Amino acid sequence: MHELTTGGERRHEDRLATEEPLEIRLAWPGAPARRVWVTMRTPGHDFELAAGWLVHEGVCAPGAIRGVAYCTDDALSDEEEFNVVTVTLSAPPQRDPGHRHVGQSSGSSACGVCGKDSVAEAVAAPAGPRWTGALPAPDVVRSLPARLREGQQVFGRTGGVHAAALATAHGDLLVVREDVGRHNALDKVTGARVLAGDPPAEACVVVSGRAGFELVQKAVAAGVGSLVAVGAPTSLSVRLAEQSGLALYGFAHADRCVRYA
Amino acid sequence: MHELTTGGERRHEDRLATEEPLEIRLAWPGAPARRVWVTMRTPGHDFELAAGWLVHEGVCAPGAIRGVAYCTDDALSDEEEFNVVTVTLSAPPQRDPGHRHVGQSSGSSACGVCGKDSVAEAVAAPAGPRWTGALPAPDVVRSLPARLREGQQVFGRTGGVHAAALATAHGDLLVVREDVGRHNALDKVTGARVLAGDPPAEACVVVSGRAGFELVQKAVAAGVGSLVAVGAPTSLSVRLAEQSGLALYGFAHADRCVRYA
Repeated sequence: MHELTTGGERRHEDRLATEEPLEIRLAWPGAPARRVWVTMRTPGHDFELAAGWLVHEGVCAPGAIRGVAYCTDDALSDEEEFNVVTVTLSAPPQRDPGHRHVGQSSGSSACGVCGKDSVAEAVAAPAGPRWTGALPAPDVVRSLPARLREGQQVFGRTGGVHAAALATAHGDLLVVREDVGRHNALDKVTGARVLAGDPPAEACVVVSGRAGFELVQKAVAAGVGSLVAVGAPTSLSVRLAEQSGLALYGFAHADRCVRYA
Repeated sequence: MHELTTGGERRHEDRLATEEPLEIRLAWPGAPARRVWVTMRTPGHDFELAAGWLVHEGVCAPGAIRGVAYCTDDALSDEEEFNVVTVTLSAPPQRDPGHRHVGQSSGSSACGVCGKDSVAEAVAAPAGPRWTGALPAPDVVRSLPARLREGQQVFGRTGGVHAAALATAHGDLLVVREDVGRHNALDKVTGARVLAGDPPAEACVVVSGRAGFELVQKAVAAGVGSLVAVGAPTSLSVRLAEQSGLALYGFAHADRCVRYA
């Protein structure tokens, strides 16, 4: 690695945020494990990532996850060994995994048949419980980014990862997780609660980046009361938050934040 | 919208980065249009986004795109009208679209059969021409983020979008595109060149965010010589760049940048 400055060039060591693919497989009684998703993620808290993603997608209720394990299939190479997890449900999934966030169409469909479903479904508000408890006061909202930063372990070393945390209305952080993917970080937060047997619904999630549409979808699916982002929201994020009764804050800093919904 | 500061609360207007779903359909002689991808994107340059995504995915060569059009299907709602595009190829696709970046598995597969393919494919280096021309000198690399910032139209208004640009070895920006999704911004850059009949291969692409693995994949697929990122790369980005002969720079600023591969 070479650092190139206006003063010249020098070699030095640098720590990089690790990124590897994780494959999630889903099994339930009577059904063999099948692949449902592949994501690029920072290894660690992989079981939480898998559990949180499934709950956010509405594939299963938090209580329906019977177990999560690394796949021990003999056909896996060394490189794949800790990059494949199988989630076992106690019953068939509530919805076809990956159906809402369409990555590819399997079959050939005539124009207009698939289209209406896919665009409409991509922006649908997830079903889920609504948070009826207290929400963080403005001074608590403004304090959350600094608290999140304190809880970040990897960013200080690599500068390359996102973070998400679940917080009470008083600003106490319950879970902090990091990942190269900001969506993954929030999946891990929800998954940590689910696997611990705690409800993923709380007063607030705080995220280190922008409040993109999919983060709002995840927060709503988890039943959280508010989403606080250090960065900007988008038009669609604000619309979905309004529809779903989610309090949405952007540009959160110690001396300022903006409430959008 | 409410701005909450330490001094109190005030209402004001704010501009938000627009985010809407775009559905891409693919057709070729003898095959009806079928949906291949849905992405959340900032509207504008949609044809470029579709064309660039297909080329980056290795679905078709740049010259195989015969046309791109908004879908005029009567079944589309008003909201969907400018959110669905159809790309028509002159021949069947080179590879199944979306096959490499697996979003969902359509059928049920036994454990170990699908797995090996998917994780291995997710990290595969794309095939493509290698850039053999000149690369930007260190002082040019350090100048690129400021040039990119000058070319950004939307960020200054909203603070919520990413940018990507194609640049010559001398630092001249050929195309600048913005999007709420950093992957989309790079798809639009390549698509702009493809639809103009120009080769997407050039000395350099510069991106406003981090150098995640998928951005490196896209740069390699486009046949670009170097990738300059304002943010950090990941471990997998560096590995792929080394395998592919892509020069990779991170943390690029006026007085410093770091070469990783």
